[in-house]
Amino acid sequence: MSFERMWRDLAPVGHSSATGGYRRSPFGSAERECAAWFEEECARRSLDLERDGNGNVVAWWRPDQADSAGAAGVVTGSHFDSVHDGGAYDGPLGVLSALAALDLLRERSFTPSRPIGVASFVEEEGSRFGVACLGSRLLAGSLDPERAHELRDDDGIFLLDAMSSAGLHPSLGSSGLLDDVDCFVELHVEQGRDLVERDAAIGVASAIWPHGRYRFDFIGEANHAGTTLMEDRHDPMLTYAMTALAANKQARLAGARATFGRVDVRPNATNAVPSEVTAWLDARAATSRELEELTAEVTRLGTERAGRDGTRVVVSEESSSAPVRFDEGLAGRIATQPGGESWPVIPTMAGHDAGVLSAAGVPTAMLFVRNPTGVSHSPDEFAEWVDCEAGVVALADTLQRLTS
Amino acid sequence: MSFERMWRDLAPVGHSSATGGYRRSPFGSAERECAAWFEEECARRSLDLERDGNGNVVAWWRPDQADSAGAAGVVTGSHFDSVHDGGAYDGPLGVLSALAALDLLRERSFTPSRPIGVASFVEEEGSRFGVACLGSRLLAGSLDPERAHELRDDDGIFLLDAMSSAGLHPSLGSSGLLDDVDCFVELHVEQGRDLVERDAAIGVASAIWPHGRYRFDFIGEANHAGTTLMEDRHDPMLTYAMTALAANKQARLAGARATFGRVDVRPNATNAVPSEVTAWLDARAATSRELEELTAEVTRLGTERAGRDGTRVVVSEESSSAPVRFDEGLAGRIATQPGGESWPVIPTMAGHDAGVLSAAGVPTAMLFVRNPTGVSHSPDEFAEWVDCEAGVVALADTLQRLTS
Repeated sequence: MSFERMWRDLAPVGHSSATGGYRRSPFGSAERECAAWFEEECARRSLDLERDGNGNVVAWWRPDQADSAGAAGVVTGSHFDSVHDGGAYDGPLGVLSALAALDLLRERSFTPSRPIGVASFVEEEGSRFGVACLGSRLLAGSLDPERAHELRDDDGIFLLDAMSSAGLHPSLGSSGLLDDVDCFVELHVEQGRDLVERDAAIGVASAIWPHGRYRFDFIGEANHAGTTLMEDRHDPMLTYAMTALAANKQARLAGARATFGRVDVRPNATNAVPSEVTAWLDARAATSRELEELTAEVTRLGTERAGRDGTRVVVSEESSSAPVRFDEGLAGRIATQPGGESWPVIPTMAGHDAGVLSAAGVPTAMLFVRNPTGVSHSPDEFAEWVDCEAGVVALADTLQRLTS
Repeated sequence: MSFERMWRDLAPVGHSSATGGYRRSPFGSAERECAAWFEEECARRSLDLERDGNGNVVAWWRPDQADSAGAAGVVTGSHFDSVHDGGAYDGPLGVLSALAALDLLRERSFTPSRPIGVASFVEEEGSRFGVACLGSRLLAGSLDPERAHELRDDDGIFLLDAMSSAGLHPSLGSSGLLDDVDCFVELHVEQGRDLVERDAAIGVASAIWPHGRYRFDFIGEANHAGTTLMEDRHDPMLTYAMTALAANKQARLAGARATFGRVDVRPNATNAVPSEVTAWLDARAATSRELEELTAEVTRLGTERAGRDGTRVVVSEESSSAPVRFDEGLAGRIATQPGGESWPVIPTMAGHDAGVLSAAGVPTAMLFVRNPTGVSHSPDEFAEWVDCEAGVVALADTLQRLTS
């Protein structure tokens, strides 16, 4: 089927031969190549492209028949951007499966009773501008455009300038692109091993854990690494190190997640005690209350250590996502198969555009494709080809049922 | 005196108004501006410039009289490059004091019996290419030029290309620039508070502690920060954090120094467990044996923790400097003042070009100028103006005695 050809098309785009990972940074050349490729594929299928000022695109299949006129559409899709050295599946699997599902429905000579849209959202990972699901948040009106205007990447480039440089004509803010849709269904590779343990190729999402990103600024005093007595130092690296270990321990104790995966040291010289260490905590838990307790405890332990190190800690929340409960009726309808069997309905700890849209009031569901190792955000991210194909069929079946 | 005017000239060059620190990276624009300024100052004094293929310069005052012809010279000087966001004094104080001392000797109508040279060495801090005292090591033949040819900065630029881009005509290796000198004297701001405690404005160096730089590669497995169970992770950040805390503790116990001031995380994304953390240990101790014991213990503790984290640690020595004992006779002669009093003779934990030259067999001494806080490699590095002026006079007196 078309799926395999599309997968081959995209495989080299943004691939690093050094690490084996993907580098599809939002509005960078590789991600833009994916976006251009997507528009060509949509044109090849005579889909109507609709773009918004945030960089998001929906390609509509509007069957030419009376009863679909004016009917609210069913939208599916995902994103092309990756974390730096991420995997091939997170994002692109959802967009490619959507296009392949459309092809399958046409092969079946199925005519939907309402339009079907394939969406591609920008900056889902938050890897360049620090806000996850940037495109869908702006679209849905859940991120203040004023705040988005202030966003810069690590090189100091503003979001608007990055978009303009990529040839876009940005106009940030709530776009109405999905205002009039009946429901949204995102297919995504599973990021965990729930389906492996359940021996199922396909699952349906029940909920997303609440999630917060917090910036920890550890402020000390730069000094000479050789001459400064250990007792005279105000070394923020020590405060950071203890905080990173404490976050791990607290997350284990609470059955939650806490990760320090990004660190920025100043001046970052071998022979200088740092003046400042900035590190970002990614924390997730089953409930908002548990998440707040976790971050409060990590902050308390870091601050206590700072007192001993003669340093300071300043913690600021960069983003926070409330728990998402996907539409139960929709999940149930999708999970129950015609033959009577059903796909497992499972929670996820990962944020998705689907979560943003669900929180904004769009009836939303997610399909997961089994990930044998559970590894994600890594060059080792993987899904079996047969499971990916099963995902395309599952998505096509789902779209067919939702538009019959 | 000329000293104040020169200090004002250089104050803005490479100064960051954001941090208050200096950014004079070797062969970068600010450091090259310092180098050009130095050559102008030498021309203004009719000194003969001698350059080597490593970027080092010596400006000679060769008094036109019979008994100085063929006599081995006395050289003084230091460097212009800084660590990123370093202070104003570390390096430039030695070069400016050297020029000002020459002016003072001429004001005194003193005519030296042998040539006096003012040296400026490149990349003393090792902040760009990772090898401290790169210029003096190459000059003295204590660094293999083949190794220097392989050096690259963080942007992947080779040393030779950086030098060529700066308009130099590099030819790396032992240059003979100081082969024929009688002795070398470097004036430097103290990096510590020894002179403060002794209530002395000027001191003389006795020795430099042995010093090593070690690269620690902590290797784990990248994964999703939300979905990966804490128990399933191979997170190298944890191994690094414990190692950084262990290094600090072991250095305290041993009365030594250990610093992790530079860290590089891959992929360095908020929502990804890192695949690798690379961190550099700067370690110093009173003896080579104590230094080896310290680094072995830090390596052992890091490796032990890696076993628990499911990660690996690879340690490689990037540079190592044996202890330096400065020429005792020379130090004694310099420290003893005509009036009978004497300047304190103290060890230092910081590396210097003087240490490299001493190890290479050049009779070498150092003068220190008091640093009220001991802070160095920081925007807060400071010396009182009156102490800097005392340094110029001390250096002039020393040069006069060594060339009478």
